[in-house]
Amino acid sequence: MRTSIATVSLSGSLTEKLTAASRAGFDGVEIFENDLLASPLTPEEIRARCADLGLTVDLYQPMRDIEAVPEAEFARNLRRARHKFELMGRLGADTVLVCSSVSPLAVDDDALAAGQLARLAALAQDFGIRVAYEALAWGRHVSTYDHAWHIVETAGHPALGTCLDSFHILSRGSDPKGIEDIPGEKIFFLQLADAPLLAMDVLQWSRHYRCFPGQGGFDIAGLLAHVLRTGYDGPLSLEVFNDVFRQAEAGPTAVDARRSLLVLQETVGVAAPPAPVVPTGVAFAELVTPDAELLTAVLGALGFARTARHRSKPVDLWQQGEARLLVNTGTAVRRDGTQLAAIGLESPDPTAAARRAEALLAPVLPRRRAPEDAPLDAVAAPDGTELFFCATDRPGHPNWRADFEDAGHPPAAAEVSRIDHLALTQPWHHFDEAALFHSSVLGLHAQESVDVADPYGLLRSRAVTTPDGGVRIALSVGAAPTDDTVHAQHIALATDDVVAAARRFTEAGGRLLPIPANYYDDLAARFEFADGELETYRDLGILYDRDAHGAFRHCYTRTVGRVFFELAQRDGDYRGYGAQNAPVRLSAQHALKRLTGG
Amino acid sequence: MRTSIATVSLSGSLTEKLTAASRAGFDGVEIFENDLLASPLTPEEIRARCADLGLTVDLYQPMRDIEAVPEAEFARNLRRARHKFELMGRLGADTVLVCSSVSPLAVDDDALAAGQLARLAALAQDFGIRVAYEALAWGRHVSTYDHAWHIVETAGHPALGTCLDSFHILSRGSDPKGIEDIPGEKIFFLQLADAPLLAMDVLQWSRHYRCFPGQGGFDIAGLLAHVLRTGYDGPLSLEVFNDVFRQAEAGPTAVDARRSLLVLQETVGVAAPPAPVVPTGVAFAELVTPDAELLTAVLGALGFARTARHRSKPVDLWQQGEARLLVNTGTAVRRDGTQLAAIGLESPDPTAAARRAEALLAPVLPRRRAPEDAPLDAVAAPDGTELFFCATDRPGHPNWRADFEDAGHPPAAAEVSRIDHLALTQPWHHFDEAALFHSSVLGLHAQESVDVADPYGLLRSRAVTTPDGGVRIALSVGAAPTDDTVHAQHIALATDDVVAAARRFTEAGGRLLPIPANYYDDLAARFEFADGELETYRDLGILYDRDAHGAFRHCYTRTVGRVFFELAQRDGDYRGYGAQNAPVRLSAQHALKRLTGG
Repeated sequence: MRTSIATVSLSGSLTEKLTAASRAGFDGVEIFENDLLASPLTPEEIRARCADLGLTVDLYQPMRDIEAVPEAEFARNLRRARHKFELMGRLGADTVLVCSSVSPLAVDDDALAAGQLARLAALAQDFGIRVAYEALAWGRHVSTYDHAWHIVETAGHPALGTCLDSFHILSRGSDPKGIEDIPGEKIFFLQLADAPLLAMDVLQWSRHYRCFPGQGGFDIAGLLAHVLRTGYDGPLSLEVFNDVFRQAEAGPTAVDARRSLLVLQETVGVAAPPAPVVPTGVAFAELVTPDAELLTAVLGALGFARTARHRSKPVDLWQQGEARLLVNTGTAVRRDGTQLAAIGLESPDPTAAARRAEALLAPVLPRRRAPEDAPLDAVAAPDGTELFFCATDRPGHPNWRADFEDAGHPPAAAEVSRIDHLALTQPWHHFDEAALFHSSVLGLHAQESVDVADPYGLLRSRAVTTPDGGVRIALSVGAAPTDDTVHAQHIALATDDVVAAARRFTEAGGRLLPIPANYYDDLAARFEFADGELETYRDLGILYDRDAHGAFRHCYTRTVGRVFFELAQRDGDYRGYGAQNAPVRLSAQHALKRLTGG
Repeated sequence: MRTSIATVSLSGSLTEKLTAASRAGFDGVEIFENDLLASPLTPEEIRARCADLGLTVDLYQPMRDIEAVPEAEFARNLRRARHKFELMGRLGADTVLVCSSVSPLAVDDDALAAGQLARLAALAQDFGIRVAYEALAWGRHVSTYDHAWHIVETAGHPALGTCLDSFHILSRGSDPKGIEDIPGEKIFFLQLADAPLLAMDVLQWSRHYRCFPGQGGFDIAGLLAHVLRTGYDGPLSLEVFNDVFRQAEAGPTAVDARRSLLVLQETVGVAAPPAPVVPTGVAFAELVTPDAELLTAVLGALGFARTARHRSKPVDLWQQGEARLLVNTGTAVRRDGTQLAAIGLESPDPTAAARRAEALLAPVLPRRRAPEDAPLDAVAAPDGTELFFCATDRPGHPNWRADFEDAGHPPAAAEVSRIDHLALTQPWHHFDEAALFHSSVLGLHAQESVDVADPYGLLRSRAVTTPDGGVRIALSVGAAPTDDTVHAQHIALATDDVVAAARRFTEAGGRLLPIPANYYDDLAARFEFADGELETYRDLGILYDRDAHGAFRHCYTRTVGRVFFELAQRDGDYRGYGAQNAPVRLSAQHALKRLTGG
């Protein structure tokens, strides 16, 4: 199906918006009137620009408060419409959107509304234009899609149809099943927008909080299925008013938007990109660092050993149990200091995984970095993290491990068994995009988003995981686009005995993040512990949490560059990430940063 | 009355919060539990720190979901309470807040709730602590203040009273009159928070959107009047959960907070700061510039003449009609380039105006800048703009005009009659503070806030004015803390004939902001104009707006440094600022900036 996006969904000047829409692969655009008014291009120039970019102008919406008004007012509206229809001729747009009136002049008279809309459609027809009438959720007298369709049906004019908008329909709780009663050829246009389920004024909700399908709480696929059963064959068009998208760069927003439509089409069965290949585990995490001394000291104290070295590049493999960390001192450091640059995901079929990622618009990275390297499929996540699809030591697949030669240092300790989870700070403006990327491209399950209080603002955090927890990635985003290294990436290492692991670390000279004594007084009030247990936690700086399924004990190393490590022990079937303790951890990190000036 | 603030209302570490509260003049604090848990200070050290800062610890709130639960659960709650009461002894806090339960274990049984709260109060009494029971607006069974009071009354324990919270009362639409039925000595605590009137989930509203009294839509003064009639003599305490305050610097937030309580106390008649002295007009606007060449060229083209020069400083007075602009090339430039640094407000009583400003915590500036200068009362606004209270040419008052010697250049033109309004961009995080400052300190009237779509994000704008429009200041704030010179300050100059003024400007070599032709096509669709009128506007770049009271015609110069000028013609009783046209203006400024790279 053809895909389209309203220019109001993207930031920038009209030409910036059109360029972003075209590059993301959209077929058409809805031009929002204010974008045209503010453009220095004439309508003819905009039309030519769209043609150059391979975009059609699918909709224009210059008019409000048209119908069911006194005759004198309607005459003024027709006068305005004539102006706009002339403009649409110059612009090359053949469908005009008319939203149900919110004017205090409008009367509750369906016959009058139908009659006036028919007269508008007759005028439109003279210009080769079709009128798509849509019920606004807050329309004065017409606020439901079936009511709007009833008026269109009554009017009975060939140039008059209806426009359906998923937000207006689902925000009111209307049953979308009735859409199937509308003949497909009378649905002139379909606008799609999702939204988080918020109990708030519907106008404010619509104007500020819409999002792309799959990023909110509405069943957009269910609605689309009803629409497709009518035989509708117009474009799927995104009309998303969102305060964040207004500020974000248009390019990534357009990609995020188009990905959401690709996933939606897959869900309803009208597109079949390569099927998702869910990863089964973390093959490795790769850290880049300009100076490995501090980082490797921390890894050594954590019990990792340098078990292998890359044949041709300054990359060491540090290993403990099934936890494998690559330390790369050769990569041109793209940002400042030590950071988590890449993740190797163990995949049942790396090539198929990469094909799906590419089909869902993930930037594909070169398969081979150097002539002798194993050719690995890899893509970039929205935050720039490189994702490698790996088949470690599996015959018949390129094997990253084969690029490494054993260094003859077997692991000295085994407190750490594997990587529990990876925590990645997302660029501001692209949090929802990241969640949709990881769920759609990688087939991970996105859990609920939680707020976490940092001393200097609220963070949001959301985990994406495989059902068995083999891969867990915690995505977080700050409250403002401030650069704050406290909100660093981190690697959580699973252990069966966090006390032993923490002791080993400190005895080897490692320093854990100090946790205030007050925290432990509170634990004593909230939980009962065995004799001496709480004292041990207090001495080491181990945090404690409990949910309905089990317990979580965890502690943190100090930060190296932009990376720190967590030691994490899950007991029972604890499913969280210790979010309850995050404010204490963040405060302790801020305090340490102030102390060290780092 | 004593004033207090909850630490959750301020950003930073606990010591940062305490310092900010003390510096702003608060008498006490409510300590939010997470702030204590995350602090490296022991409770005894926190107590000592508060004492050093002159702060009492007025409230601690470590417990939730206490009452109306099965006995086994209540026993656990008592165990927890004992821990917390011991802690409060160390902390020096004698009042504990208990919010009505939201636990699924809680039952709807007032007698059980009263009985358990009485037992809790008995335990508290052993520690010298009072229990203040408060109805959360979303409490499971107890959600109104009268219900909470009924339970307290039933319990009948001397160490049990109620806590009133204006948000919880007013967000539910409860009538606060019934507060007068509660004996004052049983109101153990009063928490005050305002909020914008939003139709949304009350829990989200409370957690993210509370604001200080006078910054939202609730009648906090009315509620306080009812509370005072009971004989309540505890502190007025601000408990404000707000996503913006969480990010903002604690110092200014604390000042903003305390100012809101000062104004509130004045409103209910328990404090009498010096009365407001409403300014009657703009005496001057002062521009500082490192290089006056471009600026004075623009002023000259606008018809201003350099009519006088300061006796001892490199400051020129440029005048046209009653519009006076000071161009200061001597001031150490505090930020980059040309900017609006000071405003002279014509005041009926400058000294009294300054006294009020000082009483409301405005930073007072030195009265005399140089030995020979007239001593002028001046304060700094939250955005750093200096506000001078002036009595121009009025006998018996210091006269700024007397510092200037005539330069012998009478104005050559008189298209401009006065300053119509001044537009000031506010620092992010401090928009509501600015509105409250201008309304409370200067006695201006704050109008409704409006959203304005910029191509790169939504702006908010709000005007503060005198009733007759003698002083009009438009405050605006961007969507994110990005530095964007497009969002500059501007000076709007009133004219009776914007066409003549614009022509004069362009004929003198000035360049107006170019406005796209599409904008005029839309005007033609929306309004009827006399022959040639629209063409004139299009040729010059004049924008047009109309409200129920009259019409507005306006155009803009290009930006010099961070300042641009507007020529504005108001006809009839037009009351706005052309906000309808702001998106077009902002787009044109962005386009020009891209073109010129400036």
